[in-house]
Parts: sequence; structure tokens; C-alpha cells
Amino acid sequence: MALKTPEEFKESLRDGRVVYIDGEKVDDITTHPKMKIAVETAAFDYVMAEMPEYYDLAVVEDEKTGEPFSRYFHRPRNGEDLLKRHELMLTASRLNYTTTPFAREMIDSFNGCAVNAYTMGNKDYIERVDAYLEHLKKNDLSLAGAITDVKGDRSLRPGDPKQAHSDYYVRVVDRSKDGIVVRGAKMHITGSPYLNEMIVMPSRNMTEGDADYAVAFATPVNAKGIIQIAHPFDYHRGSADFPIDIPVRSHTDAVVIFDDVFVPWERVFLCGEWQDAARAVYNFAYMHRHTAVTYHIAWVELIVGLAAAMADYNGASRAANIREQMTELIFYLNSMKSLARASCMDCVMHGGIAIPNPVTANVAKYFYANNYHNVVKIVEDICGGILTTAPTYADWQNKETGKYMEKYLGGRVDASAEARLRVVQALRHYPCLGTELDVNNIHAEGSLMAARMTMYSEARPDLKLYKQLAEYLSGVTKMSWEEYVQLCNELGKLGRGAQ
Amino acid sequence: MALKTPEEFKESLRDGRVVYIDGEKVDDITTHPKMKIAVETAAFDYVMAEMPEYYDLAVVEDEKTGEPFSRYFHRPRNGEDLLKRHELMLTASRLNYTTTPFAREMIDSFNGCAVNAYTMGNKDYIERVDAYLEHLKKNDLSLAGAITDVKGDRSLRPGDPKQAHSDYYVRVVDRSKDGIVVRGAKMHITGSPYLNEMIVMPSRNMTEGDADYAVAFATPVNAKGIIQIAHPFDYHRGSADFPIDIPVRSHTDAVVIFDDVFVPWERVFLCGEWQDAARAVYNFAYMHRHTAVTYHIAWVELIVGLAAAMADYNGASRAANIREQMTELIFYLNSMKSLARASCMDCVMHGGIAIPNPVTANVAKYFYANNYHNVVKIVEDICGGILTTAPTYADWQNKETGKYMEKYLGGRVDASAEARLRVVQALRHYPCLGTELDVNNIHAEGSLMAARMTMYSEARPDLKLYKQLAEYLSGVTKMSWEEYVQLCNELGKLGRGAQ
Amino acid sequence: MALKTPEEFKESLRDGRVVYIDGEKVDDITTHPKMKIAVETAAFDYVMAEMPEYYDLAVVEDEKTGEPFSRYFHRPRNGEDLLKRHELMLTASRLNYTTTPFAREMIDSFNGCAVNAYTMGNKDYIERVDAYLEHLKKNDLSLAGAITDVKGDRSLRPGDPKQAHSDYYVRVVDRSKDGIVVRGAKMHITGSPYLNEMIVMPSRNMTEGDADYAVAFATPVNAKGIIQIAHPFDYHRGSADFPIDIPVRSHTDAVVIFDDVFVPWERVFLCGEWQDAARAVYNFAYMHRHTAVTYHIAWVELIVGLAAAMADYNGASRAANIREQMTELIFYLNSMKSLARASCMDCVMHGGIAIPNPVTANVAKYFYANNYHNVVKIVEDICGGILTTAPTYADWQNKETGKYMEKYLGGRVDASAEARLRVVQALRHYPCLGTELDVNNIHAEGSLMAARMTMYSEARPDLKLYKQLAEYLSGVTKMSWEEYVQLCNELGKLGRGAQ
Amino acid sequence: MALKTPEEFKESLRDGRVVYIDGEKVDDITTHPKMKIAVETAAFDYVMAEMPEYYDLAVVEDEKTGEPFSRYFHRPRNGEDLLKRHELMLTASRLNYTTTPFAREMIDSFNGCAVNAYTMGNKDYIERVDAYLEHLKKNDLSLAGAITDVKGDRSLRPGDPKQAHSDYYVRVVDRSKDGIVVRGAKMHITGSPYLNEMIVMPSRNMTEGDADYAVAFATPVNAKGIIQIAHPFDYHRGSADFPIDIPVRSHTDAVVIFDDVFVPWERVFLCGEWQDAARAVYNFAYMHRHTAVTYHIAWVELIVGLAAAMADYNGASRAANIREQMTELIFYLNSMKSLARASCMDCVMHGGIAIPNPVTANVAKYFYANNYHNVVKIVEDICGGILTTAPTYADWQNKETGKYMEKYLGGRVDASAEARLRVVQALRHYPCLGTELDVNNIHAEGSLMAARMTMYSEARPDLKLYKQLAEYLSGVTKMSWEEYVQLCNELGKLGRGAQ
Repeated sequence: MALKTPEEFKESLRDGRVVYIDGEKVDDITTHPKMKIAVETAAFDYVMAEMPEYYDLAVVEDEKTGEPFSRYFHRPRNGEDLLKRHELMLTASRLNYTTTPFAREMIDSFNGCAVNAYTMGNKDYIERVDAYLEHLKKNDLSLAGAITDVKGDRSLRPGDPKQAHSDYYVRVVDRSKDGIVVRGAKMHITGSPYLNEMIVMPSRNMTEGDADYAVAFATPVNAKGIIQIAHPFDYHRGSADFPIDIPVRSHTDAVVIFDDVFVPWERVFLCGEWQDAARAVYNFAYMHRHTAVTYHIAWVELIVGLAAAMADYNGASRAANIREQMTELIFYLNSMKSLARASCMDCVMHGGIAIPNPVTANVAKYFYANNYHNVVKIVEDICGGILTTAPTYADWQNKETGKYMEKYLGGRVDASAEARLRVVQALRHYPCLGTELDVNNIHAEGSLMAARMTMYSEARPDLKLYKQLAEYLSGVTKMSWEEYVQLCNELGKLGRGAQ
Repeated sequence: MALKTPEEFKESLRDGRVVYIDGEKVDDITTHPKMKIAVETAAFDYVMAEMPEYYDLAVVEDEKTGEPFSRYFHRPRNGEDLLKRHELMLTASRLNYTTTPFAREMIDSFNGCAVNAYTMGNKDYIERVDAYLEHLKKNDLSLAGAITDVKGDRSLRPGDPKQAHSDYYVRVVDRSKDGIVVRGAKMHITGSPYLNEMIVMPSRNMTEGDADYAVAFATPVNAKGIIQIAHPFDYHRGSADFPIDIPVRSHTDAVVIFDDVFVPWERVFLCGEWQDAARAVYNFAYMHRHTAVTYHIAWVELIVGLAAAMADYNGASRAANIREQMTELIFYLNSMKSLARASCMDCVMHGGIAIPNPVTANVAKYFYANNYHNVVKIVEDICGGILTTAPTYADWQNKETGKYMEKYLGGRVDASAEARLRVVQALRHYPCLGTELDVNNIHAEGSLMAARMTMYSEARPDLKLYKQLAEYLSGVTKMSWEEYVQLCNELGKLGRGAQ
Repeated sequence: MALKTPEEFKESLRDGRVVYIDGEKVDDITTHPKMKIAVETAAFDYVMAEMPEYYDLAVVEDEKTGEPFSRYFHRPRNGEDLLKRHELMLTASRLNYTTTPFAREMIDSFNGCAVNAYTMGNKDYIERVDAYLEHLKKNDLSLAGAITDVKGDRSLRPGDPKQAHSDYYVRVVDRSKDGIVVRGAKMHITGSPYLNEMIVMPSRNMTEGDADYAVAFATPVNAKGIIQIAHPFDYHRGSADFPIDIPVRSHTDAVVIFDDVFVPWERVFLCGEWQDAARAVYNFAYMHRHTAVTYHIAWVELIVGLAAAMADYNGASRAANIREQMTELIFYLNSMKSLARASCMDCVMHGGIAIPNPVTANVAKYFYANNYHNVVKIVEDICGGILTTAPTYADWQNKETGKYMEKYLGGRVDASAEARLRVVQALRHYPCLGTELDVNNIHAEGSLMAARMTMYSEARPDLKLYKQLAEYLSGVTKMSWEEYVQLCNELGKLGRGAQ
Repeated sequence: MALKTPEEFKESLRDGRVVYIDGEKVDDITTHPKMKIAVETAAFDYVMAEMPEYYDLAVVEDEKTGEPFSRYFHRPRNGEDLLKRHELMLTASRLNYTTTPFAREMIDSFNGCAVNAYTMGNKDYIERVDAYLEHLKKNDLSLAGAITDVKGDRSLRPGDPKQAHSDYYVRVVDRSKDGIVVRGAKMHITGSPYLNEMIVMPSRNMTEGDADYAVAFATPVNAKGIIQIAHPFDYHRGSADFPIDIPVRSHTDAVVIFDDVFVPWERVFLCGEWQDAARAVYNFAYMHRHTAVTYHIAWVELIVGLAAAMADYNGASRAANIREQMTELIFYLNSMKSLARASCMDCVMHGGIAIPNPVTANVAKYFYANNYHNVVKIVEDICGGILTTAPTYADWQNKETGKYMEKYLGGRVDASAEARLRVVQALRHYPCLGTELDVNNIHAEGSLMAARMTMYSEARPDLKLYKQLAEYLSGVTKMSWEEYVQLCNELGKLGRGAQ
């Protein structure tokens, strides 16, 4: 029992797992050009555990044996534990260049199973979840959570015979003395191609007719019958980008096929108890929505910083509208932070495990997700069309064009063209920001502010008449009835143009 | 004087223009792999003029000579003319697979110059704009508008000596008997690498110290000293996509350098009259904001249709929340349409030219741009995480993975996996939609609706207490003071979890 | 057949109708202190028809006989007719001091019945609706529309036996050779206590079990068995207000009881055809939602004017945030106007009658209603806490306090305290505006802008760190790993205060 | 030194103070019919200190002497202290029937002065603020804060000679050995007519020319020269309301005139140090914005409960749209609660006093105030037009009308008309809710939901065409070019009605 080194973690991934990407089968996940970035991204969790200054944050020592294990494998018992976890996830994301390692954040899904076992009071399940936790600690494993089924017709339940086939949700197709055999597919499974284990659990509440679908278990990802189709991801720094001496970090996910996979009973945490299916996934969700809002903080901090840099380089940071927009970004970021931590402090105890407050964790995640697109709009409005239309690094290197870019793409006196182009390129790697046509939506034909200013200046004659009306009807001024009729007629012509 | 064929249009682009893209100089814009799609996109304007059923919409015949010319070159004289133009632009965008041809929509910028000339009452300018219009008609030219300067420090005026250099806005650096010489750079210039002419005009109001910057003119894009740096654009259908028998359409733009470009006097429409600089650009903006909202309608129609298709394939089209979201999309699209047309009907006359109502045109453009990101959020919430995580066409073709995709990625009984994947791929080509991490923002850890439903169900005990409070304080129920104190204490514990 | 004078209209209301208000029975509606303002408000429709300059707008002459009748009784046949009606309603509202007369706007409900009759092709009904229209014209009558049923349990249909009783929706309880007898109650019936006729129609779609509830008819409001309970309304200018030489205008409404009311067959427009119930009310709604957005324009014009006046008096009209807010008001008002008129121009023909475009009319009404509360917030933020806390006119008259008010409640040099107080009082008569505690919500502890400015200034240290992060991660600056770790630690302390 | 009883508090208000209301001078504030409710509201703070179960929350004992004093007079030293204060204010508001007592919440303003004294390190001021705190404790006083000046022209600073006169901000007009004389007026001063002391402080930052306006001090409200003009407030339960056996609670405020008021030096906390003016008011604001969001929680809890009751009585609580709206209310209330408490936990130390986190406290207040009007809209949409149109209690008592109200205004089987009317009346006492015309905005012509449903159903043909377009352009279906042109033409007709 010992902490793995980053190299040992990578070595553990060369285990015969079946992963496809973009039409080809992956031989070695740790060296494949389309996958190795993701492996490095996850490995940072093991790197951090080796950094002395973060040992107390990342590692917990066994109360009895003193043996160290990852804090993720410590069952939270109170708000303080949750706040520590929160700080661990956020700090790791910051250190990992704003990207969460996500090597064990999906312990959330296993914790959901554990809450379930303890709440059901099922001795077998309790024994199994406790044993599996020791397995994780002892081998310092990483794990993915596989929750979302592929679903088929969303208006039908898993076991509804009107579904095109019976396998749209993962289900038990055979039971034996040794274990169960499962079939189906899970989707949007982040990290599973490059992590050790997978926690599989139901994605929804169930009825009696869905009993075969009420199944939760753990499995190594290299189990026979597991086929993963990973999707290619944005490498997050292209040949068109200015070179930069910082590693690229990114994750990807997979469609995971369970083609009659055997699971031994000691890894089965739910099997047929359809009444208990929802509790597992709900408890997972309370924890994981807090996890999500946590690691996104690191990301939003960078976006806010990039917007602040661009406003400064453009000489616009003191403009009233830019300050208004920066204020909106601060409001967003600080609300996320406060709500995320409040959900820890107001935790509830489920099955003996501390869970972030179910309402507040959802409030925090919803606040973050529901307002992100407004943040995109604001950042694009601050940064301008150059987010889309900036020439490339190749153009910069070509002397014929580079000289003009250097001259013309600068900002205020001490803001170089290169600095502006670098900020633009950093922003483009964040969702929506800099998406070609998206910035056009905001900036082509003038910014949002340009449209607003024109409305105001063009409506000046209207405002003058409305004010006359207001002053008469509040008794500030006097008019004859004839004058009032005349004013009404003028109001009737406003905005009617040449007609 | 005759209408050009699409082939003649393309031929006219092989004229020695200087265009760079991604670090290399473009030899023939019409065949260059990174540019030819844009050329085809613009050429559709010439295709449409040859379609008999659209002749009346796309072509106007000279009142005297009967000679045909593009409707874009007909100066609008009333609301009807503007509505015709609106219909032309919108129909062309629809026929061109939702992308505006944009070959002459930038006549808006020239019309801005014409309004200016007539409003100033400057005979020379009037003569020149009238002559140039005949030139456009006679040669059936296409044209770009070059408005946005590169600006430098946004807090300083063009002529402010504190700017890092004097060329952040295009300016006159020399005047002679024959014409003027201009220097500077314009940015975000859509279409100029693959259109014939360019209308250059000031991008803002000016003061006396900016007189050299108050310059407007027309020039062929192949004039000596014009260097264009185009930016590479998304080809809008990648190798990962399902093949489809419909042409790709897309535009790009350029940074345009004016390296001491000579412009003969007959093409100069403003030169030094700083008081008149703003009028030209404002009138351009009134027209062009209407133009923009017009051609985006075609785009939004498709997005709404794709969302409707996906909801249907998922078996979700009758769910209350999906209907709510479809309603929001309808509200958005129909408001855009009504506001755009209202701006025509309530037009104003400036310098004898009908201009879409200045307030309404801005209202329409602002409404569209300010709410687009909300549309993105809704469409992503409707479509689900598959927008990001769908495997590729290569995976589909690989028999080992394709068979699972076919089985597992289907929707309701008669919605095939292929249909769902095709809709996903079509959506991904629109701004933000399907951007990798963006969909994660919405869907990772559950959709917006999942978070909302959890908030509601978790807050049921809260609601019960709030209702008790309400019934007592409105006199529906009775309580003793002690019972009320007890109720207040219970309220105090809500949301405070285990503490 | 002749137009009624305003006096003849009032005389026609003294007809034995049964109206209660605030616990007492009303003897003469035209003189009752709680009702006469409403009577005068409606009477303006008859006043306007007598104004020569509005004759063409308010009056139509019979094509055959040349006899004049109210434009409301002209069935619209095209978009032009609808635009005329729109202009009539809006002009009347403006002239009537921003309040719609509403004497015949509810012809919308009768038009819904007429559309239904013609669409059904039911000869009896067609004959009856045509005859009733002639009756309205000939007697120059006013009319209310009674649509909303009291409903009982909203989750149950009208005829569901689980309803507490059978009369929650108006229904036919008896049929005879001469006519039908109806029972039930309608609610929120604007104007019925002081208008001549009432059009009663179903408020929803029906099923076969609801056939008795599928009933539409016209009746004089003084028919035996009709009891109206009007609710007291705000007189819209109190003793605390500064006196002003402009009439008060306001409406009220009633709960209308149908206590076994007889309706002769010639006034019955639907009776049992449950499949046709929805069409009548939907067509009413298309028309009436356009009507509603129309007359509210007059109201919003005044609110915008009052906000502009207050901003000016406060010396704040040039502040960036105030201009932003005025722009938002302009956006709101102009969108309402454009959408309302667009719904006329894009009308549809139902049963031979022009109906404002069903989608657009709803878009317009929804836009207006859904955003009104944002307007309230903005106007309150512009005007400040004085909206609530201003002393009264009695304080102004008391010399001891009046002298201080005059000195201290002034604004910029030429804006008197009286002018500010008058604007405040005019605003208070509009929904929400100036509601005591509502303004507190915005202004107590500082305005919205004050909170925003504090967020920004307090977050300056945060922004500085975010910018450092951005500059390093985009490659603008360099850092060692140790420096980066240090930066991450500082980020971790932000917003954590003294802990 | 002892805690005052509620009666002693009331007795202390009979001290010769000069208060006017609605044009008349108030003789005894504690018995005046327009003021006594406010006195009782404040007195609850003294009531609560006598309740044994809240002694620990409301009272602190002196560390040395063991003498008890109000927790408000305990200077907070850490986040725990702030959380206790938060709980005290919120609990008091709940117990006081949702209204904050506000007898000493304005200690926030004095704390602002204390922070200033300690930060300046001015020994005199430190001595004075410490002595004054002892005075407050010893005499168990209540206090108001007077911050907002009347301001005059908002674009000018206090000392700008362009102001109409020099007294728009409170200033020092004389200094002597014994103290200073101040002149000016403060506005929106909650509670000052019925509390003991007043803390007066600058309302903004100052420049050197404003030195005479940089003045902060404490004074008894009965000091010579203080004239208060209170404004009449809504008694919050009218004769039209159903009787209810719960006390009415409400506050009011005043314009406070300082007509050359003498203040002895020992009560002067700032005098001329214009550089320090802003710090005092900013620190007050950090604390007081937290205070404000705190006591509003009690209020919002009731509003949410009333909405839940009405939805239930209407039989609508299971409708999807109602659940969506209840979810929005929960989101709002829980965010307020979490943000308010987070601002305590992340407190900062200023001048040795714990201050709620400046960014978070403003985020919380802004969140609450900026979204309140949306809550109004939702509650009105849930409750329906009856919020406005419900007949009165007098109608209920009149047998002729009461019998119909009882029959027709009921909801689901076990929801009586009386219960519904009581809930309506309780809601009407909250800002905007039930304001006559406001509910009309939402409900006249159908609810927001009715408009949305109509948009959706009327746009069905549009959606069908958009879907066809989507399926063709994504390659799901095939079309010939002719068919595509035809589809585009049909798209062109959508929403264009009969034209």
C-alpha cells in the first residue's frame, strides 16, 4: 500500500483496454498522439501528491496504520472535510493550468453507491463498498463514473417494450453464483479511456418493470467485453498559435459499450432493487454538481483575467461600459465561489457521509451553467472582432505580413501586437469564445454598445416629446387642450419614418 | 452593360490582387483550397440573377434604357424598395444553404457615402457617387465595405499624438492634382479578398485634429499598395463528418493594409470634412444593421429546425420543458423577423435615399445579437451532451465500432442513429453549438433541467414550512405564540444541513 | 341610427343594472363616487367621435346608406383596417390621458364569435352575429367581454364531477323554444359595470363531457339574474397629491354572476358544439393581445417621459449608467410599437375577418408583459428613493415643513422641488412604481449602481491577480514553476477575508 | 446599566422631538395613530431580549462586569460574531411577523465611524467612539443612521458653487470650543422619528473643496434644530381586508432637517478630514448591505409560502409551468441565504472590526435587489388576476354578494373561497404584488403562459418547415434543387399572413 508515482500511474494504463478513436484502435493510450495529453492531464493528480507543500491537502494518513492515501478516498464526515476536498480540487485545477486532473473526482459516483448501501442497511453491500474503498486506497487507483445511459426514446422507461430494443439502459442479462453479466452502453464518460476503474450506476429512478436495469457496480476498464469509443478532442493549441512554454491540458470522454461484461458479486453494489436506484444517482449528483462548480472556478478566473488584460491593452479599461461588464464578470465569479463553499458548510449527512447541501449544490451548478453564455457574450463584447479575425502565427512569421501586423495590431502605447494576439489565442481555447461566427454575431455591424448608443442618440427627439408629455401630465407645465391634441399627434408620428 | 455570369465574376477576381492566408501568398483566389469556398459562396448572387423565378426580385431594369442591373444597385426610395431588398437578401441566404452571398450587401457602405454627398449638397461628391453607381451597374461589380480601423489605443482619437503612431486610422498622407494617397489598415473586412471593389470610409466621428482621417473613397481591391491578410476559416464540414451532397458555404475576412495607395479624385467621396465623417458611417450602420438581422434569419431558421428534429428523434418533443424551450426559440425568431421588416416599413429619407428606421434597425440588430447566446444555451439543453461527445464518421465506418453506434445511438423507434448524428453534425457548424467544452458546461453533471428538478424536489420540506407560515400569517390557520416561535425556529434550520 | 353623444351614453347606463361595490349596492353608476371616474373614462370614446379632426379615424360610414358608425363595428378585412384600428386605439389612449376608453375594444370578443360562426359555416349563427352587429351599430352601443371563468380546481375540466360543484364555468342549465338559461360566474370583467352589453364566451377548449359549457352569447348587462360585484379601484390621485388640472382616468372590473339568466336564441352564438369552443376564444385572444399591447404604448410613453424628466431634474441625464438605462427603456418602447404594428401588417384571414398575426400578436403581448417589471426596476433606479419617501402635499402646504421641502428637495439649479415632487407623484400612479417597499428594495442601502460600483472597486486586487494569471498562461509574461505555484496560492486566498 | 423593557423604550421616545406627518405636528409618537405601529415594530427588539430562549442570541454579557447588553452593541471580531448577528436579525424578523425591528440594526453606521477612527489612528476619535458605545450599552438605546443627503444637482460635488445653494449636503457652519453647528438635510432616514439616537455621516467621497461636508457625529433625535418630516405609510391591513388576529408591523422614514444643530465635540467622529469621508460610508455599506439581505429573507420566505399556498388552492401545484416557477423562487431564496452567510464567513478585518466580505455582501444585496421584480412577475403569474380583482371583505360580509363569493371563488375541493381571498390579501401587502394595474399587465388578455402556449401552437406549421429544412441540410433526407427552392419559397411566406 503506497502512493503511486505519475509514472506508475501511466504504466498501469497499459493493460489491454479496448479503446477506439476516430476510426482506429488505440495501441498504447499513454503514447497515442490523440490521447497522451489527456493522460498527462489526469497524471497531475499523482504529481500533486508528491509536492511537499500540498501533502496535507492531497493526502490523508490512515488513522490506525498511518499509511498515506489520496484525500479523495477519505469519506467526508462533516463540512470541514468537504471544504478541504473543495480546496484540493480547486487548487489542483489552478496548478494544472486551469484544468481539473479528474483522476479521482468521480469518487463522487462511488460515494453515491456507498450512501445507498448504508441507507439501505444492506450488510452485503456495506461490506462490498467498504472492501472496494480499501482496494482503491491500497492500489492508489484512478476511476471514472459511468452514469448516463444512451436512453433511446426519452419518453419511455428503460424496460418499456416500446423501446426499439432492450439495451438502451445498462442491464443485467445473466446472474450466476460468481457474479452477473451486464449489457448496454453509457455515454459522455469523461476519462474512462485513461483511468483504471469505472463505477457504473443507474442514471434515473426506476419502476418494478425496470428491475434488471437497477444495477450498480465497479469494474476495471480493461474487463473483457468493455469497448470504448473515445472522441477526438481539441488539442487546445494549434499550429496557428503563438508558441508557448506551458503544457497543453485537456480531457476527453467515451461511449462505453458493455458487451456482456462479467462482474463478480464483490463488485456489485445494487442489483434489482429498483426502489433504491434513484438514491444512488441523486447522491452522486449532489456531490458532483459541487465538484463541477468547483473546478470551473479555475477556468473562469482565467477568462476574467484575459478580458481584463484585453481591456487594458485596448486602452478601454476606464470606459464606463467596460467597467460595467467587468463588474458583471466579478459578480458571476464571486457568486460561483460563495455558493460552492456555502454548499459545503451547509452539508447534510446521508448514510453517514457528508454531502454538499442538495439545494445549494444545485443552485451553485445551475447558477454557473445558466449564466455562462452571458459571460461569453460579455467577453466577446469587451475583446472585439479580433477574437475571430486575428491573422495566424504563420502570418506573423512571414516577414511580408508580420511587419504590418506588428505595426497595426498594437493597442495602447505599451501594449504590443504580440501581447494582444496572445490573449486572443488564449481566449479562443475556451468554449464559444472566439468561435468564428459567434463573434460575428456580436461584432459584425458594430458592437452591442454601438447599437445601444445609436438607439439612444436616434431616440433623442422621441425622449423630448415623452418628457413634454410627462411634464404636462404631472402638472409641471400647462397646455391648452388644443396643444395637448397637437402633442398627441406628434407622438403618433414618432418612429413612423417617412410615411 | 450586362449582368455577369458566375463564371465571369470568378474570372474578374484573377486580377493580381495581393492576398495572404495563414502565412502564404495566394496565387489564384478562385482555386486556392482555403479560399474557393468563399468565392463560390459569393458567386451565388450571380447564380440567383440567372434564375428566372427570381429575376424580378434580384434584377431591376433601368427606367430609361431597360437594361438590367442588380437590385442592390437600385437606390431605395421608399419602404417598398427596402422590403424588396430585405426579401432579396433573405431569399438568397436561404437558397445559398443559409449563408448570405454578401457579394453586394456592402452597397450599404456606398449608400452611406451617397447619403452624405447629397446631405452635404456637395456637387463634386454628388457627381462622383452618381458616376460610381453607374460604374457598378455597368460592370455588374461586387464590393466590400472597409470601415473598422485598427484603432490602437481606444481611449484616444485618431489624430491624438499620444497614439503609438499616426496610422491607426486610415488617413490621407498626400494630395495631388490627380488624387490622394492613403495609409493605414482596416480590419474585419468580410469578403474583400474575393470581391471586386472596396468602399473605404471613416469608422467614427471626428474632430478638427482628425481632418486627415476624414476620408471616404472607392477603390478596386487590386490597387497598388493594398495588401490583404485573410484569416483561415472553418471549412464547415470536416473529414469526421458524415458525407452530404450539399455544397459547403462560408465567408472569410481580412486585415487590409493601405500601404500608400493612390485614389483618383473621381473615387474620393470625403476628404477632410471632419464634421461630415460621422454621418456617412451612421447611415451605413442603419442600413447594415438591418442587412445583418436579415440574413441571420435564414440561419436561425435552420437552428430552430435542427433543435426540433433532435427533440423529435429523442422522443422528447412533448415534454413540457422542451416545449417551453421551443417556444423561446419561436419567440426569438419571430421577433427578429417582425423587427427587421418593421424597420423597412418605418423608413426615413436621408439625402433622398430610404434608410431603415434608425431606432428600429438598431433595436432589431441588438435584439438578435444580445439574445443569440441564450439560443445557444437552449439548443444545447435540448440536444444533450451528444452534441460534444458523438463519435466520428470514421468510427461509424469502422465495422467494430459502427455496429455499436448503430445500435446504441438511436432515439425513438423510427429515429436512426445516423439521423441523430447527422443533426448533431449540422448543429456543430453553428457558433458555439457543440463547442466541446461549452456543451459540457450545460450537460456535464446533468442538464439545466436536472438541476432545476433537484432544487424543487429537495426543497419540498422548505416549501411545506413556508406554506405553513403563509397560512398562519394570512389568517387561514391559527397558531399559539409558542407554536409560531417553534415554526420560526424550524425555518431557521432550513438549508443549514447537519450543523 | 346615429352616433350617441357622451351624455346619451351615460344616460343609457341608468337601466336598473345590479352592481355592488365594497359591500354596498350602487344606485346610479354614473354618479356614484366610486364609479363615475370609470364612466367618464369610457365616455371618451364618444367624445372622440365628435372631434372633427378624428372623425375619419373613429367613424366609418356605411357603404350603402352612408350612415356613420364607430370604427370598432367595422369588421377588419385587411392589414390596413387593422392598422387603422391600432391607430384609433392608441390615439384615443393618448388623448384620454394615457388610459384607453375601452368602451368597445372588447368587440374583439364578439369578433371571435363571428369568426367562429363563419368558420363553422353555421347559417343560424352567421345570421345572428350579423344581426347583432347591426344592433350594435344602430344603437351605438358599448360592450364588455366576459371570458375568464372562476374555474375552481384548475387541474380539472369544466364538467369533471370532481369539481366542488358544477358551476365553476358558465354553463347552460335550461333550453326552451325561446332561448337558453345560463348559470355560473365570470371574473376580471373590465368595464361591464359601466358598459351596455356583454359578450360571454368559453375561456378554454372543451371535451364532449363539457358540452353544456360550450356556450357563447350576447346579453345586455341589465338582464335579470346578472349581479356584478365591482372592486374598488385606485382613484389615481389622492389628497396627498399636488392638485392638477387634468381629469383622473381609470377603469375597474367585476365578478359577474349569472344567476340563471335567460338569453334568447337570437343572441346565442354557440351552444353545445364543444369542438368549436376553443376557436372562438383563440381568435378573441389574437385580436385582444394586439389590442392590449396597443393601448399600453400610451402608458409606457408617459413612464419613459417621467423617467427622462426626473433624470434631467436630478442633473443625472448625462451619467453613463442613466443613459444606459434610458436606452433600455427606448428599446422596450420601440420594440412594443414595432411588434404591435407588425402583427397588423402580417394579418391572417379567419372566417373572412382580418386577425392580427397570431404568433406576432402573442410575441408582442408577451414581450411587453414579460419585461414590464424590468422597466419598473429601471425607472426606480433612475428616480431614487424619493419615489417612496417624498413628503405629502399636506406637508408642502404646512408652512413649517413646506419651507424646508422647497429648499432641500430641489434638483439642479432650474429644477424646483415642486417639479420633482410632481413627477414623483405622477409615477406613483403606475403599477409598482413608487410602491412603498418596492423602492426600498432597490434603494435602501444604496442603489443597484452603488452595489455594482462597490463590487468593482473592491475586486480590484482580484482583477490584478487574474490578469497576472492570464498574461502568464497566454505567454505574454514568463514565470518559474515556483512563481506560478505562489500565484495559485494567492488566488486561493482571494475572497476568503480574514480566515 | 440594564436592559430596557419595551415600555421603557416607548417612554424614552416622549422627549420633545419635532416630527411632522402628512401636514400635522405629532404630539406623542407612541400613540399617534399614524406612528404607533412603527413604534411597536421597533419595540420588538426589546421584547425579544426578554424572551429566555433568545437571551443568548440577543444579549451579550460584558466580559468583565457580566452586565448584559444588546448583541448589536458587541463589536464583531470574527466570522462567528457576524453569523450570530445574522441569525439575530433574521430570527427577529421572522418572529416580528417578517418585519425587522430595526431598532439598532443601524449600529452599522456607527461601526462605520468606529472603523474610520481606528483606521485613521486618531486618538480623539477613538476615545469618542469607544465612549459613545458605552453610552449606547449603558442606556440600552436605539438608533437610526442618517446617511443620504438631499444632493441637489447630482452631477456636482457638495461644495460646488454651481449648486443652487450650499446646504444640499449636511455641513459644518460653525465651530466653537464646545462643539460644532451643522446645517443641511438627510433623506430616506428609516426609523429616526421613533428611535433615540441618530448617527450622521457623509454619503460619498469628498475633495478638498468639500471639507466642511466631511462631518460625522451622533446626536439624540430631540436635539434643538432637528425637524423630521415623516411620510405616511401603508398600514398594511385595510378595512377591506379580512380581519386577522396578528399585529400589523411596518416602518416609516423621514426627511430630517438640521437647522443649525449643535453637536458637542465628544459626539463628533469626523470633521473636515475629507480624505477619510469615503471610508466611513463604505464600511457602513459593507455591513448594511449584509443587514439588508438578511432581514429580507424573512419576507421572501413568506412570499414563497403564499405562492405555494395559492398554487395548491388552485389545484395547479403539479402543473409543469407552476413547478418551474416555484423552482425559480427556491433558487432566488436559497441563493440569498447562501450569499448572505458566505459574506459573514469570508469577513475582513477593518480597524479591528469584522466586516462582511465587501464583494460578497454587495453580490448578495445586488442579487436580491436586481431579481426582486422577477419574483413579483412569477408570483403574479402563479396567483392570477384575482390578486387585483378580488372583491373586498365588505362584499364578503354583505349577504347578497357574500353567498356568491363563497360559491364561486373557491378552488380545489378543500380550498375555500375565504382561504384564497386571505392569501390574496396577504400578498397585496408586499411590494408590487397585487398592485392594481400591475397584475393587469401580466394577466389581462391571458397569462404569460397563455401567450407562450399560443405562440407554440400557432407556430406548429413553421416548426414543421424548419424541421424539413434541417433534415435536408443535415443529410437526413434528400431533395431535388427544385424541391429545395420550393421549400425556401414556403419559408418565405411564413408569418406573412394574408399578404
